This record gives sequence, C-alpha cells and structure tokens, in this order.
Amino acid sequence: MEVILGISNKHVHLTEEDYKTLFGDEPLGVVKELVQPGQFSSDKKVAIKTEKRTLENIRVLGPLRSYTQVEVSKTDSISLGINPPMRNSGDLEGAAEVTIIGPKGEVTKPCAIIANRHLHINPNQRKALDLMDVDVVTAKIVGEKVTVFEDVYIKEDPNFTLELHLDTDDGNGALASTGQMVEILK
Amino acid sequence: MEVILGISNKHVHLTEEDYKTLFGDEPLGVVKELVQPGQFSSDKKVAIKTEKRTLENIRVLGPLRSYTQVEVSKTDSISLGINPPMRNSGDLEGAAEVTIIGPKGEVTKPCAIIANRHLHINPNQRKALDLMDVDVVTAKIVGEKVTVFEDVYIKEDPNFTLELHLDTDDGNGALASTGQMVEILK
Repeated sequence: MEVILGISNKHVHLTEEDYKTLFGDEPLGVVKELVQPGQFSSDKKVAIKTEKRTLENIRVLGPLRSYTQVEVSKTDSISLGINPPMRNSGDLEGAAEVTIIGPKGEVTKPCAIIANRHLHINPNQRKALDLMDVDVVTAKIVGEKVTVFEDVYIKEDPNFTLELHLDTDDGNGALASTGQMVEILK
Repeated sequence: MEVILGISNKHVHLTEEDYKTLFGDEPLGVVKELVQPGQFSSDKKVAIKTEKRTLENIRVLGPLRSYTQVEVSKTDSISLGINPPMRNSGDLEGAAEVTIIGPKGEVTKPCAIIANRHLHINPNQRKALDLMDVDVVTAKIVGEKVTVFEDVYIKEDPNFTLELHLDTDDGNGALASTGQMVEILK
C-alpha cells in the first residue's frame, strides 16, 4: 500500500505552563493546518540553546500538549552537542536537557528527543490494512536514492489519518519530499 | 561481507588555482589522515555562501584536486537554498553555484553536489569479493533504526581501500557512526 509522506523538521511542543513562560498572554496562532487533524504549524518560534550552540527560529507546533518536547534529528543533535535518545512522542525518559528561549522567558528541562519513524493510522484504517497484529512496518522510498526504512512504529489514534512521518535525516537522505507517496511493506 | 563506514560531513575539494585565490601562499596542512590512503582532513576551513545563507567553518580536504567541488547533504542544500544534483565525485554536470570564501579571496562557480552513496574498493578487493559484474551494491545498517541503502555506487581505484561512504543525512538517519562496521549485500 502507499501512504503520504510527511518530513518533520526540528520543532517544539509546549505545555500551557511553558507556553506562558515563553510567550506570556499572546495567543497561539495557526499558520498552517497539518495533515493530522487538529495539528497545526503555529505563528510562534523559539530558540533552542545548549552549552555548544543556539539554534534560532524553531517552530512551535500546536495545539498545546500535556508535555513539552523538542524533536530534533541526529544531525541537529550533533550540531547542538547533545545526545538525545530515540523515542515515541511523549516518552521523555532519558531526554536531553536544552533551554527553550521565547520573547518573554526561557525554560530549561530534559525534553529533547529524536522521534522514531512512525506511521499515523486510525483503528479503521489499521483493520482495513490488516495491520492489527504488528507494531512496526517497513517503508520503502523509491527514487535516485532508494531506501528501505525498517522500524516504522505504528501510532494509532481515532483522530489520526494515514501518514508516514520521517525526520529530515531519513527523508532528505532518500531525497524525498513531504507530500509524496511512499510504499509501506508489512 | 562487512566493511567500515565513513560518514562524510559537508566539505570542500579545491584546485591549486582556487586554493591560491582563497589562501594565497599558505601551505595546506594535514590535521588528520583519512581512511582512504593519501586523503586528509586539512587545517583550512572556508565559508560557503549562497543568496539565502552563509555556512561557516566548512573543512577543506586534501590533497588538492583537478576540480573544485563542494559536497553537501540534502539538508545542507535546503539550508543554503540551493538544489544540487546527486553526482559521483568529479562529475559537476548541473552542479549548483555557490561562493567559497577564504581569508584571501573568494571563488564563485557551479561546484556544489550531493555525493552519491559509494563504496571505495581496489581491484583486488573487488575481485576477491566477486563484485566485478555489478556497478552498485546495497548496504544495511543494523541498530535502533535499521536502514537498507540501495544505490551504493562502486568506486574502484588501485589506491582505494574498502570503505562505505554515506553523507550525514543517510548516516545520521540510521543513527550510525564513522568507524562502525556495516553489511554490504550484493
């Protein structure tokens, strides 16, 4: 089967509390709706600071969540001089400490991870595609640099729609683009 | 079979003429010998400038060559706002124009490419490994993010030794490291 691909650049999710520390009472505005229903690219950016470096203009995604999380690629993490673990979104065990800087304040906490490769899917799609008995699938991107990605985690939620998420290392390595169709192998 | 992996960060090769424009009469010093015999990481760095951005501290590799070439990853090229083609080293057809800036001067020319995945090998190794009849092989990296890279070009020269070269997108996407062993599948 083929699914749509989304390549995730480094980005930040924030709790309401941390959002207020960084941005005060400014509302979180929508710049662009994302493929996953309700998720959006916001009008807010932060800087991410470590002992080694500061990366500016990192996008905050909305809506606000129950956890604050900075998602980076391995390449970003080398640039920042940190060693974040690969994790499911929301699993911050062993996450790397960074400082998030906004116009009104800053927050320092262990919240940086490398997101795992994952396939967003809802229960109906999962059943229809006969993926009830597996936790991971394989994705294949065909082009000038054919690449097979194993260890793609299935991320099921009634609100999700079918979409493969790769980070910029994986997606750019395969010379792929957001919005293209890619093959999923069970 | 297993071979050693080298992950290539963005770097620059220079002709003698362009080297003199950028660095004048300073000698090109060796900082570290690379795995391929005679190749080295030099003591010289340049900046790479495009209309969108300037990236500082890009390493010059030695020795000097018959062509000037800037090797970047797709992620680097997005950052720079250029669209370089994937090429064998030395094949600059359609290469993207960038400006290389050194302490003594600068050079602007179409010389930026994304290097293809390639396996350095010498004729004896190629024969011993029964790779005479193929132009490309497949590499598999096992770890937290198992990845299969097709389209690995065989690059044969009597001076080469067996080594797989991936750029930072491919290598970091697989959470791999320079010096680790990876599997080559015919």
